[in-house]
Amino acid sequence: MIAINGQRLVSDLKALARFGRVGTGVNRPVFTPDDVASRHWLLERMQDAGLDAVIDGIGNVYGRTPKVSRSVLIGSHTDSVPNGGWLDGALGVLYGLEIARALIEAGDASESGVDVISFADEEGRFLGTVGSRVFCGEVVPADCAGVLSADGTILAEALEQAGFAGRPLARLEPARHQGYFEAHIEQGPRLEAETKRIGVVTAIVGIRRARVVFGGQADHAGTTPMDMRRDAGSALIEFAHDVAARFRNVGSTDTVWNFGSIAFEPGAANVVPSGAELMIEFRDSSLGVLDRLEQAIAAAAETVNEADKVSCRVEPVMALEPTAMDEALGTVIEEAAEMCQAPAIWMPSGAGHDAMVLGRHLPTAMLFIPSIGGRSHDIAEDTDEADIVLGAEVLAEAVARFLA
Amino acid sequence: MIAINGQRLVSDLKALARFGRVGTGVNRPVFTPDDVASRHWLLERMQDAGLDAVIDGIGNVYGRTPKVSRSVLIGSHTDSVPNGGWLDGALGVLYGLEIARALIEAGDASESGVDVISFADEEGRFLGTVGSRVFCGEVVPADCAGVLSADGTILAEALEQAGFAGRPLARLEPARHQGYFEAHIEQGPRLEAETKRIGVVTAIVGIRRARVVFGGQADHAGTTPMDMRRDAGSALIEFAHDVAARFRNVGSTDTVWNFGSIAFEPGAANVVPSGAELMIEFRDSSLGVLDRLEQAIAAAAETVNEADKVSCRVEPVMALEPTAMDEALGTVIEEAAEMCQAPAIWMPSGAGHDAMVLGRHLPTAMLFIPSIGGRSHDIAEDTDEADIVLGAEVLAEAVARFLA
Repeated sequence: MIAINGQRLVSDLKALARFGRVGTGVNRPVFTPDDVASRHWLLERMQDAGLDAVIDGIGNVYGRTPKVSRSVLIGSHTDSVPNGGWLDGALGVLYGLEIARALIEAGDASESGVDVISFADEEGRFLGTVGSRVFCGEVVPADCAGVLSADGTILAEALEQAGFAGRPLARLEPARHQGYFEAHIEQGPRLEAETKRIGVVTAIVGIRRARVVFGGQADHAGTTPMDMRRDAGSALIEFAHDVAARFRNVGSTDTVWNFGSIAFEPGAANVVPSGAELMIEFRDSSLGVLDRLEQAIAAAAETVNEADKVSCRVEPVMALEPTAMDEALGTVIEEAAEMCQAPAIWMPSGAGHDAMVLGRHLPTAMLFIPSIGGRSHDIAEDTDEADIVLGAEVLAEAVARFLA
Repeated sequence: MIAINGQRLVSDLKALARFGRVGTGVNRPVFTPDDVASRHWLLERMQDAGLDAVIDGIGNVYGRTPKVSRSVLIGSHTDSVPNGGWLDGALGVLYGLEIARALIEAGDASESGVDVISFADEEGRFLGTVGSRVFCGEVVPADCAGVLSADGTILAEALEQAGFAGRPLARLEPARHQGYFEAHIEQGPRLEAETKRIGVVTAIVGIRRARVVFGGQADHAGTTPMDMRRDAGSALIEFAHDVAARFRNVGSTDTVWNFGSIAFEPGAANVVPSGAELMIEFRDSSLGVLDRLEQAIAAAAETVNEADKVSCRVEPVMALEPTAMDEALGTVIEEAAEMCQAPAIWMPSGAGHDAMVLGRHLPTAMLFIPSIGGRSHDIAEDTDEADIVLGAEVLAEAVARFLA
């Protein structure tokens, strides 16, 4: 058992939330002054806790338990989306800090300890999960030096300005790191709806996006009889209706999809749309299911093209493969939750996390705690303090079991 | 019989098309320098033809056959939409000019003649059909002096600059004007598709537009299970699909509708739409059918609201009542077409015309000739020369029969 201090954890979370505070949330995109200041604050907290801590050449804040040869790595990210929530990645990092600190305080002279990390730019101001990818050796900062943010900042210059450019890189050490735990708020409504307090992640879902482009002909919407039209807008509506029906048939119970945006050209009340565009995104933790969903889109597009009035072209714009979490490590969390009298449910993570990257390199598990109203990436994001503390207790118990 | 000169008619049409020429079309919004110049040109042609002609205080160019107590009025408009077609309203005006000219040339000493008119601003640079509305006494220029064009010009100033402000107004004379004929290109593909060369208009359709506004909740499109969403975008798609099905059931064979524009909020691939907006326009020549279509929209909206996830509000934004054409006058055109060995079809006009205004005050009929490819309000608009001449011959025959 590792005896964490729930009050200290919450107090640290609130202290971190002062950096970039916006109402009840935070605005802390990576390498903005508030993010940089918060990384220095975190570095000091790690050092105070007795960790050997550094900020590395990609901005990762990394603290190692001294004098141990093996460790469990716990972390997430402290950068936020613009005007995001105060918990999001911060929670997983400060869980790591509190558990490492509690373990060091206990004075256990074991060969194993806890290392803690806050990865840089999980949220992708420049390049999503770049911090964890550099940590795992998938890329080096030079590979992505020229990446631009939406506001026109160059990654290399932002690193330079932050004072992190050229520093040594913290790296995954296969001999040392036995596993990676990442705790996170759920960012969805399932735990709350099922009145559960702990979720164990089965897999981080794969994501595919396609832009579907319809080509018809602009006609006067008063003088052109319905059967003489090549109406790209109505074709899109029937297509989307068809795709939703097919998805309900071939998807899994966890499949989600979204028609996120639609645009009609020219977009006038009295002109039959000559063009239309639809953005579809769909997610599932199974590659097979993702393939079936993609085939459903292709079949619906084929139906449009066969009618020979409006052309329909499907352009894949993104494909992120699913990442299964380590089942044995997840079971340790499940058992810890049981021990804490908070029976967990297994569920996929519909959003991406640094665990997606780490999971390609070492046994990785994720723990979810509830999000009030399912809110996320919004200043309204929040979680009951009791759930925050319980999550840390469950993770501490899981770490203790794993290190035992 | 009135013996028109087809070659002279086409030559006049081509001369008029030089004003504001843009490729194969014309750019002649009302009261622009090219429009004003073309009105002076038309005035001279009317005077050359022997008509008593004036440009009046709203810019209408009006020519009266002298020494007759009764007349048939023939006209349309010579202003165009920006970068419009060369025929559009010009055709109906120059048909009138040619028929009046031919009748005067024939030296027929009848009590009845032909008056010709080009109404101002049918296309609504300032206020659609303002010229015919002033002519019919529905409004006076002072009522609409302050109307602004999209380019920020004030109607009163444009009239002043054109040199027309304060002039006497030409007015409908119930004792003189026995009927109004307006010829126009079809602006649609029906005559061409049915290989007919003359259309007789049953009615100018009524037009209703509604904005349909959906309110849901923005959620993470990866972490929110499908059944926990309040997805305004998907609600819109199912609603539009439902409305189209209901319209097919309750509409007439002539009913047309258009989903002209759609917008999703916030419009991101990975965010469940919190809001969505759809613009629906529908047209029919029967008030009863228009009412049924409106009820179908209300019923579809009710279905959305009953599901109690997404709110659906229907906001009417426009309602233009249908205008029936005079059946007896239309039958005269039908008989004239038969006589010219070009059997006509009866069809509604899906677009608005000055005849919509005139039809409220005197017996009014419209004649359509084919539009190549159904093109309209575009420089690609065109009609075979043989069809242009045939249309004039049919109208001349109809006028002769009507005056007989």
